[in-house]
Amino acid sequence: MSCTCLSALPRWGVQEIILPGPATGNPYCDQSLTAVFACADEQRTVPGFYDGEGRYMVRFMPSFEGEYTFRITGSFLEAPVCGSFAVLPAREGVHGPVQVKDTYHFAYADGTPYRPVGTTCYVWHLQGEEIFENTLQTLAASPFNKIRFCVFPKHYDYNHNEPFAYPFQKAEKKPGQDYAWDFTRFDPAYFRHLEKAILRLGEIGIEADIIMLHPYDRWGFSRMEIRQMQRYFRYLVSRIAAYRNVWWSLANEYDLMPLMVTDHWEALAQEIGQYDPYGRLTSIHNCFGFYDHTRPWVTHCCIQRSTEGVDRWRAQYHKPVIVDELGYEGNIQHGWGNLTGEEETRRFWEAAVRGGYAGHGETYWSEDEILWWSHGNRLKGTSPARLQFLRDFLDSLPGYLEPWRSNWDDRCACVPGEEENAPPVIVYYYSHMRPSFRDFTLPEGTVYRAEVLDTWEMTRIPAGEKEGSFRLPLTGRQYAAVCFTRIK
Amino acid sequence: MSCTCLSALPRWGVQEIILPGPATGNPYCDQSLTAVFACADEQRTVPGFYDGEGRYMVRFMPSFEGEYTFRITGSFLEAPVCGSFAVLPAREGVHGPVQVKDTYHFAYADGTPYRPVGTTCYVWHLQGEEIFENTLQTLAASPFNKIRFCVFPKHYDYNHNEPFAYPFQKAEKKPGQDYAWDFTRFDPAYFRHLEKAILRLGEIGIEADIIMLHPYDRWGFSRMEIRQMQRYFRYLVSRIAAYRNVWWSLANEYDLMPLMVTDHWEALAQEIGQYDPYGRLTSIHNCFGFYDHTRPWVTHCCIQRSTEGVDRWRAQYHKPVIVDELGYEGNIQHGWGNLTGEEETRRFWEAAVRGGYAGHGETYWSEDEILWWSHGNRLKGTSPARLQFLRDFLDSLPGYLEPWRSNWDDRCACVPGEEENAPPVIVYYYSHMRPSFRDFTLPEGTVYRAEVLDTWEMTRIPAGEKEGSFRLPLTGRQYAAVCFTRIK
Repeated sequence: MSCTCLSALPRWGVQEIILPGPATGNPYCDQSLTAVFACADEQRTVPGFYDGEGRYMVRFMPSFEGEYTFRITGSFLEAPVCGSFAVLPAREGVHGPVQVKDTYHFAYADGTPYRPVGTTCYVWHLQGEEIFENTLQTLAASPFNKIRFCVFPKHYDYNHNEPFAYPFQKAEKKPGQDYAWDFTRFDPAYFRHLEKAILRLGEIGIEADIIMLHPYDRWGFSRMEIRQMQRYFRYLVSRIAAYRNVWWSLANEYDLMPLMVTDHWEALAQEIGQYDPYGRLTSIHNCFGFYDHTRPWVTHCCIQRSTEGVDRWRAQYHKPVIVDELGYEGNIQHGWGNLTGEEETRRFWEAAVRGGYAGHGETYWSEDEILWWSHGNRLKGTSPARLQFLRDFLDSLPGYLEPWRSNWDDRCACVPGEEENAPPVIVYYYSHMRPSFRDFTLPEGTVYRAEVLDTWEMTRIPAGEKEGSFRLPLTGRQYAAVCFTRIK
Repeated sequence: MSCTCLSALPRWGVQEIILPGPATGNPYCDQSLTAVFACADEQRTVPGFYDGEGRYMVRFMPSFEGEYTFRITGSFLEAPVCGSFAVLPAREGVHGPVQVKDTYHFAYADGTPYRPVGTTCYVWHLQGEEIFENTLQTLAASPFNKIRFCVFPKHYDYNHNEPFAYPFQKAEKKPGQDYAWDFTRFDPAYFRHLEKAILRLGEIGIEADIIMLHPYDRWGFSRMEIRQMQRYFRYLVSRIAAYRNVWWSLANEYDLMPLMVTDHWEALAQEIGQYDPYGRLTSIHNCFGFYDHTRPWVTHCCIQRSTEGVDRWRAQYHKPVIVDELGYEGNIQHGWGNLTGEEETRRFWEAAVRGGYAGHGETYWSEDEILWWSHGNRLKGTSPARLQFLRDFLDSLPGYLEPWRSNWDDRCACVPGEEENAPPVIVYYYSHMRPSFRDFTLPEGTVYRAEVLDTWEMTRIPAGEKEGSFRLPLTGRQYAAVCFTRIK
């Protein structure tokens, strides 16, 4: 029995242990590897995986500081491999993985609020080095703290190129086949590149919402048998679950997947449950009807729709709601891809004041046919600056926004406090409407500081201390909001 | 038996016959008057009414040219009054009353298409002489060919003044009463002023959609007993049914009337049916739920809502749909009164391409608190010019627009012709969306002339002759439309 002392790592980092093993036969199927990591506060069983060329690997994310031990057993190991390492305080700015908080919201593991402002670049990581770097640079300077992207390459308008590699090893083609794969053998290089993307995103504080399956496919990856999909899920989860910024999205537009039925999705969710020891956030994205978001493995509702239903879906599912596809700012021919920046922004605000969250996308056509929504690269739209304004506004609040006493022609939210009738913060949002004034009545005995926001012009202007009943002049433009902060 | 020859009048004009009679007692209740008018083509029984000061009156609109005879009987007449008159061709520009055409549309009696582009000025006629004249002047230069307004004065935001007169004579007030009325006695002066408004509107080609009851009331007119309402309906219908531009709207927001139940509305509709010999267009306007528009006396659906349901309501009721309250362009605090000009216009186009019609309103706040929607006077908004563009566009078509084969992200209509698959005109409207191009496929063997419309910028630009499948560059802005006119 060998025993090693590994180098220390920070809390929520990744301990990676590599063991040599057999490269013959089909190591992906024939061999197995499991590790148990333990410290005073946790014990986790972690699956290993084969990384090619006789390299077997285990990755582990420690959730606590202190001394950890581990013990690895494997089909090819004559004796367990044991060892220990120290876990140091988290690196500055690292708050741990994101978790559900207060039923409808999110926070990092250290309690720091996390308010998703996501974007989507389905296959940004498969567009070559230059776009890869440009995208990361763009994201670092953007309002976005989450990105949705696919494991597999994408076949769709403006995206018909071949990726640099494939997730599976090639098999011999039969007559008439364009592609043939050995679904029992992965290509580790393909996954190493995915991991590089996840790590680089983590460095700039961006959550990686990993789309495990999708229907935009000419390679056959959407038509695997369920056993093949399960094996792929196991491999993917074993490889990347240790990265603290990983979220699982079982599929994009799950209901467009040609061969899948509910039992299949449930079986795949079970694979995640079994191979992800951290319980990463998990969701499944619809095109038409929603998946049953009450399923216990669904940690939050991931929804494609406009955002006016957010409060209703919260009430229906009792989980956080992220409308991560609400239509894209752009000008392509499809109705989902030619929203104005104003509308893109409005839908985010609707989500926010209804107690939920939203995701951005951008589809401006250009000669080079590089569109953010699919390729990443550079943002061109008008909404991102406004989404930063929204994010800054939400971050300035002393808590999460909850829907609260809307009128038919406004949308009201509050940050709840001890007094139900007089919360610390009340926010009104006027959406498409453009009142030049509104009448308000504040709870008796309270005083609030009023601010008038123009969410498009990105202004937040003090409007005095208010009590009782009063008329407040507003902008008379669309996309106005009012924020009342209690001071007495 | 007296017999007179009256002076000639043009077709669809009004023959007015005045008879002296008793002024004692309560002539409104105690006396009755009925006339029968006849020519080779029609015979109609027409109710008379008491016009005060011993004057009894019958008004009649002839629907045909030629020789008419009449015979008047009355409770105070010892013998019938008979006579005759000639009806000459209609005055230039007069096309007769508007009627339902082809199930979902309207035409004047002479067959000229009538496509309602309405507006609303609830009590414009009760704001004094200057605003009365200004409103008529504004309407004459506007895109509007219909106006909705109330018989009774209105008590609502920005409208708390007293009218110059009241529809009923005053009764003795009981203690605590602000107003008391003798609902059995009308004030003819009040109705003469209403008639002046109707006549002046008729002169400039505008239909008068008369709101007979409404709930915005401090005088008690919305709380009459049903018998009193019936008597009022009888009087009003007897007085004004002869004006060719009169439409009946039983109520505005019928469901907000405090004491009314369905049987009451049915009873009132019956009064109209009995006393209006011409079968004028008749509707009833909702706030929340719709009235049962399948009722036989409802000639068209008058609807308060946004216009996206027009095609659905057509299919449901098999009648023309006019969304005559879709929200008002303006900036007041109420959500229904602060739409942008863009949105006001968009809702008209949505109605049009769904095979229906819409009504405008305007609620810009100003120091003088004179708002078009309530007072009339002058238009300030940006939508009327665009509604003129819409009206001109519709008038340029060889027939009525019918909904036709929309995609999920466009709205398509056609002017139907003999070939179901290749109609003479096809119109696509893109609403909020802003495609910079679209792909089309025209029916095999046809050639169409393409035009690209910007319904906001009011441009209609030829885009060549097209056949087969092709990509058409569009504006990339909101509110675009495409019109294909078949040339082969």
